[in-house]
Amino acid sequence: MLSRRHFINLVGSAGGVSAAYGTMAAMGLLPIPEAYAGPPPLPPGAGTKVIILGAGIAGMVAALELGRAGYDCTILEARHRPGGRNWSLRGGDVVDEIDSRQKIGWDRADHLYLNPGPARLPHHHQGILGYCRELGVPLEVIVNDNRNAWFQDDRAFDGKPQRARAVINDSRGYVAELAAKALDKALLDQPLTAEDGEGIRKFLRSFGWLDKDMAFKRTPRSGWAEEPGGGVQAGRLNAPLDLHQLLAAGFWAGPSTFGEGWEQAATMLQPVGGMDRIGEAFGRKLRHRIRYGAEVTELRRTAQGARVIWRDGPRGPTRASEAPYVLVTIPFPVLKTIPADFSPAVTAAIHALEYQAAAKIAFQCDRRFWELDDQIYGGISWTSREITQIWYPSAGIHQAKGILLGGYLWSTGLADAFSALTPAERIEHALASGERIHPTYRRNAAQGISIAWTKIPFSRGAYAGWTAATLKDHYPTLLEPDGPFLFAGEHVSHITAWQEGAVRSAHFAIAALGERVRTK
Amino acid sequence: MLSRRHFINLVGSAGGVSAAYGTMAAMGLLPIPEAYAGPPPLPPGAGTKVIILGAGIAGMVAALELGRAGYDCTILEARHRPGGRNWSLRGGDVVDEIDSRQKIGWDRADHLYLNPGPARLPHHHQGILGYCRELGVPLEVIVNDNRNAWFQDDRAFDGKPQRARAVINDSRGYVAELAAKALDKALLDQPLTAEDGEGIRKFLRSFGWLDKDMAFKRTPRSGWAEEPGGGVQAGRLNAPLDLHQLLAAGFWAGPSTFGEGWEQAATMLQPVGGMDRIGEAFGRKLRHRIRYGAEVTELRRTAQGARVIWRDGPRGPTRASEAPYVLVTIPFPVLKTIPADFSPAVTAAIHALEYQAAAKIAFQCDRRFWELDDQIYGGISWTSREITQIWYPSAGIHQAKGILLGGYLWSTGLADAFSALTPAERIEHALASGERIHPTYRRNAAQGISIAWTKIPFSRGAYAGWTAATLKDHYPTLLEPDGPFLFAGEHVSHITAWQEGAVRSAHFAIAALGERVRTK
Repeated sequence: MLSRRHFINLVGSAGGVSAAYGTMAAMGLLPIPEAYAGPPPLPPGAGTKVIILGAGIAGMVAALELGRAGYDCTILEARHRPGGRNWSLRGGDVVDEIDSRQKIGWDRADHLYLNPGPARLPHHHQGILGYCRELGVPLEVIVNDNRNAWFQDDRAFDGKPQRARAVINDSRGYVAELAAKALDKALLDQPLTAEDGEGIRKFLRSFGWLDKDMAFKRTPRSGWAEEPGGGVQAGRLNAPLDLHQLLAAGFWAGPSTFGEGWEQAATMLQPVGGMDRIGEAFGRKLRHRIRYGAEVTELRRTAQGARVIWRDGPRGPTRASEAPYVLVTIPFPVLKTIPADFSPAVTAAIHALEYQAAAKIAFQCDRRFWELDDQIYGGISWTSREITQIWYPSAGIHQAKGILLGGYLWSTGLADAFSALTPAERIEHALASGERIHPTYRRNAAQGISIAWTKIPFSRGAYAGWTAATLKDHYPTLLEPDGPFLFAGEHVSHITAWQEGAVRSAHFAIAALGERVRTK
Repeated sequence: MLSRRHFINLVGSAGGVSAAYGTMAAMGLLPIPEAYAGPPPLPPGAGTKVIILGAGIAGMVAALELGRAGYDCTILEARHRPGGRNWSLRGGDVVDEIDSRQKIGWDRADHLYLNPGPARLPHHHQGILGYCRELGVPLEVIVNDNRNAWFQDDRAFDGKPQRARAVINDSRGYVAELAAKALDKALLDQPLTAEDGEGIRKFLRSFGWLDKDMAFKRTPRSGWAEEPGGGVQAGRLNAPLDLHQLLAAGFWAGPSTFGEGWEQAATMLQPVGGMDRIGEAFGRKLRHRIRYGAEVTELRRTAQGARVIWRDGPRGPTRASEAPYVLVTIPFPVLKTIPADFSPAVTAAIHALEYQAAAKIAFQCDRRFWELDDQIYGGISWTSREITQIWYPSAGIHQAKGILLGGYLWSTGLADAFSALTPAERIEHALASGERIHPTYRRNAAQGISIAWTKIPFSRGAYAGWTAATLKDHYPTLLEPDGPFLFAGEHVSHITAWQEGAVRSAHFAIAALGERVRTK
């Protein structure tokens, strides 16, 4: 009789790991979970050596789980810190890009930091959140979608910023009114009962704050011209924003639905004190497993597995390490520069995948003007200008000073253009746009520090930018072990650009590695 | 020449303070600010005595500001703590209602507390937030609107709870599709250009996640049947919720628009460690001004002002204090039981204003099942059942234990019925409903503690419930000094039920007091 396991192994041999995975799922042996179900079970490692390239989240997750199962892991990390793109910057730190150096002169305090890379942990990212729980990384709520933040578009309202609440709720009102107009016709045309019609009418009234005649006039959801107060102050509502101006502005293309997104909707979390608290916690746990300052220069196949050639420090000696398995988490813009015995298909995938450029710029502000003048506590203002976003810190509320994210550019054209500027030019660029939203911006925003990910050594890109075509042609290649080489990182996941992708790709890769060990 | 001040005083004499206030505003002397402009300027107090009844937020704000201006304030407070309805409960505390006593056996830890009264600070409540800043009360973000929380209605979906994200975004999809249907007709009927039409179509597509044919099929905003993950896990979207079920449920009547509300929209804040941090901070600042355990028993007019008779402790001696001004912040359900020389109009107002009943119940949970099983971090689940809401703590994330708010009832009928139950009955009631949302609820929720505000001594109600009729007939009466008596508290504001109302009413009252001193 063909056992289930044998059948799966057969499929695995013929169609690769992903076929086996699919088969197992179809047989109900490995149900694809509705939500995260934890790291995969692994066969005992019994000291099996694994070299992991990169002490980012993917590499460290793999090392932690493999180590628990008895595998003998070594992580080679080119930087002198763990985390990779999981990174926080504080006063005294230095930012090296390939063609510039910035020294950060910010004050030192727990709330004065910037996360140049990932800065948010969605509530459903249970892989990374689970490690935060396990490693004791304290978390706090971060405001992502703030109804009191500003939306600014040069094409509308004379460029004057509008409150998110007004844009969002006046839009709802207009849409609900339009929907109500379709209802009478729908009732005639379609098999809707009068009761349905009345139900939908009630619903639309609530949805858009329509009056009894199904007209949208104005809503307190959009804010007040004069806020209600004590004694005689009954308040006076704002008039709705002009529909033509709303349409002329591009708010609807992103900002006004941002907070509804799967990956952006509340609850959003962050580590207390900086995203690098996660990388550091992994790093402490794996301190005997990570070789820092170890820059990989060659990857070769051997009869027993693979040989990794690496430089022990920038001017250090060259060393070689061998293991039957090598888990490669190096981002492809860097990996493609390293001579390696990959299969042609893998080499093609490495060259085909384009990385997104992304850049951030941050300022120290000695006055939290966004709280004091604008009543903005955390969250994001949006602009049609290149800087795209201004982020307000959710920590350090009411402290004297704060680090303000003065721009987060990720769409390729914008980020590339911004990255091409010198750090000084970027500051001027960000100030010129920021003051369109906050009149006192230039006076309050000081000591600008910028990070252009395409220029950051050992990353040279922000995150994987799979297209429909490359996803179809090249992504599956990375799911199979290429001889001794396996791949992990956010780029080997369907959650690119998020740390959760790194975690889940590491789980996928070590499951494949475990399967290889099991069937060897 | 009639000076401006003289004219205002004339108006003040004829029409009262509110008329004077309106006149000053109209003359541009006292512009009604778009947003909060801070406490009012006061004429020097020069030791003028003011007795303040109640060390709640209104009374303490008044004492702080009057004290700064040189007035000699004494606060009489019946309780043995400052804050009034600003209150937090922890392990070891006792809850006395008029007919029961509950001892709280919860563990002691910074994150294990309940705010039985106010529990949220909206970002635009700059009065109370300003005092937090001034008094050094650390604040943190509280999740109010969580897209991963549950909406449960016995009338729909077989009573099975649905994720907020699905309810909210499938509703958006249906509304946008309906609106799109009206668009063609609108283009024919109305002076809309083809360009407008194309703009609105793009907008609606984005608003509701419609496809190119303007149909709503499904959206990742509503969540996934299988979430995207690492390796092969591309994810599979949920089908939309059935429209008829959505209409059958009452979600649209509150829960699904809750997060858009003026007073509920993000950003929402809370003091770190409990709402009573605010009351305590005021109490420390005013420690030489507050007489605790001082229960007022009579309020009399004298030739020079007023005499307050009070009992110095429950079995203590009766004392009398006199002052030219008495600021009364005692909630009306209590005030109406105190013999007082108020004018007939004020007495009528005190009796006419009905207070809302409200009740809360909370449990200690030794396992944060909402985080572990439901990926809910903070925010509120809603149910059509009497408990109305379940609140999840925004602090103590990933700690072992937590205090869960197992019900917050405020609509009068529901809260009255719940308040009539014994504490033990309330627990059973809340568990029976809670387990409709969380299957393991009964196993995890222990040591239930409930607070029915109508039964809490010295409050006897949750907050003022002005109706259109009482607001018209009686509210203005409270804005005028009644001889030596002035009134403050959330009930003398257009922000009832919020601490901001108390702050702003205090500012209004001390401005009136200052005006009286100025013109005396």
